[in-house]
Amino acid sequence: MVNKDWESRVAYLGPEASFTHLAAGTVFAGEWLMPYATIPECIEAVANGEVEFAVVPLENALEGSVPLTIDYLFHDVELHVSAEILSPIEQHFMVHPQQVENWQDIEMVYSHPHALAQCHKYLYYRFRGVPLEQTTSTAAAAKYVAENPSRTIAAIGNEFAAKKYGLTIVEPNIHDFHFNHTRFFVLQKKNIKLDKKGHDNSPKTTLMIKLPVDDRSGALHQVLSVFSWRQLNLSKIESRPLKTGLGNYFFIMDVLDDEQSVMMQGAKEELRALGCEVKSLGTYFTYKKE
Amino acid sequence: MVNKDWESRVAYLGPEASFTHLAAGTVFAGEWLMPYATIPECIEAVANGEVEFAVVPLENALEGSVPLTIDYLFHDVELHVSAEILSPIEQHFMVHPQQVENWQDIEMVYSHPHALAQCHKYLYYRFRGVPLEQTTSTAAAAKYVAENPSRTIAAIGNEFAAKKYGLTIVEPNIHDFHFNHTRFFVLQKKNIKLDKKGHDNSPKTTLMIKLPVDDRSGALHQVLSVFSWRQLNLSKIESRPLKTGLGNYFFIMDVLDDEQSVMMQGAKEELRALGCEVKSLGTYFTYKKE
Repeated sequence: MVNKDWESRVAYLGPEASFTHLAAGTVFAGEWLMPYATIPECIEAVANGEVEFAVVPLENALEGSVPLTIDYLFHDVELHVSAEILSPIEQHFMVHPQQVENWQDIEMVYSHPHALAQCHKYLYYRFRGVPLEQTTSTAAAAKYVAENPSRTIAAIGNEFAAKKYGLTIVEPNIHDFHFNHTRFFVLQKKNIKLDKKGHDNSPKTTLMIKLPVDDRSGALHQVLSVFSWRQLNLSKIESRPLKTGLGNYFFIMDVLDDEQSVMMQGAKEELRALGCEVKSLGTYFTYKKE
Repeated sequence: MVNKDWESRVAYLGPEASFTHLAAGTVFAGEWLMPYATIPECIEAVANGEVEFAVVPLENALEGSVPLTIDYLFHDVELHVSAEILSPIEQHFMVHPQQVENWQDIEMVYSHPHALAQCHKYLYYRFRGVPLEQTTSTAAAAKYVAENPSRTIAAIGNEFAAKKYGLTIVEPNIHDFHFNHTRFFVLQKKNIKLDKKGHDNSPKTTLMIKLPVDDRSGALHQVLSVFSWRQLNLSKIESRPLKTGLGNYFFIMDVLDDEQSVMMQGAKEELRALGCEVKSLGTYFTYKKE
């Protein structure tokens, strides 16, 4: 996967073997990936030039407070999205190789609270009454199980963690919802699309839009008209409170077009004419982890 | 705060002294509050009648994967929102009373990853280079510091955790963003507003809306027209992927009106006539933690 052009340091939300690590491996060679403990640390690392890229969870994530990513990008830094990565959420039930024969009689299950929550139904129907023990990450759970080979315990986590800590997956895909993805942003200072092999070819643009100060009923409707009559499709819209007090909002919109297109240029101009503040995070492609 | 009518068991997202616990105490007497380990466990507890109410984080939360709450309410259960609770996010720097004089020379800081992230700037400028140690909750961090009085270490968490574990807050309000709130839902099987002292008097209704199957550019715009011409204000809109494959969405909208109003009845009828599926979580009041 290494390509001269991409030999750049990449921060990701750790620890090693986290879901963000797994996603980052879809786009970047493993040797360039460096774990950081929190989302702001990842974002600051790229903003201050320590690394060229940062990979952080954006939506429906396992490890991070995701509004944090959106808010940090809106309020604190001027960065661009170089790519998004969609990664299926796949949780597996894993034990130490010495315990493979006993796995149905497991006495305790270790994982991150979000992973335990995502496997709620499986655990409820298959291991009702078995105590669940929370860890700070799914990787930490796998590590703990690996270090206690004589105990009849299991971890829930991804296949990366199983491999890293030498555990055996005895039941794969125990998550309650299938077709559920986590979405990650690859961030960079420059406004350049990653254009490596493996992306799908529809460009997407993320805009952050603050409505005019005299916010009123219908302002959002008016903003959407700007996209609607141009048949610009939105794949995502979300309001986020501004941190200047209650009741003030900005919007994140994902538009399925390139921001350099005639229609998008026109839309941005009209939005500004309506009194909106428009911050573009740039245009990017989507990479999917298989 | 106890009132005969409210002597009902209440599930909350634990552990004890969590931010959800703190928020739940705004509305319910402490003796009725019972911690559950995950959001689905809280929701199932109210759905299966184990408890009368559940308090779970919805937005911008510290302890939970919040899309989980929205998705669980949309896909898995028929519950209603009895109230929402807004709680300011206030993180404090706390040490063991024996270490109060040494707090500026702290050697390690313990907290939940989200709390560490929310205090990123404070930690960066005030304690750069001091190792940060992740815990499964802010309460667990406070407990650890309480159990190690001879070590020069600190925890970050809320005032409830400081009180519970006998720690001294040496620097209050170290979170980076002020005016930042976490929003919690109080859930119940019945469609009844909580109407205790202390709420603000504007009713709010949460609708979950699935667009017609032949989703097309402008469908969301059409949906918003239904609210816009009636001057029904939306305080929140968010799209969430349906879990039936990529590209299908439902919307969560908070409307600042009572669902029994003439305008709201008309809006819901029109939405259904447009081919939308509309699921109402009911009308409720807002309680604010001071």
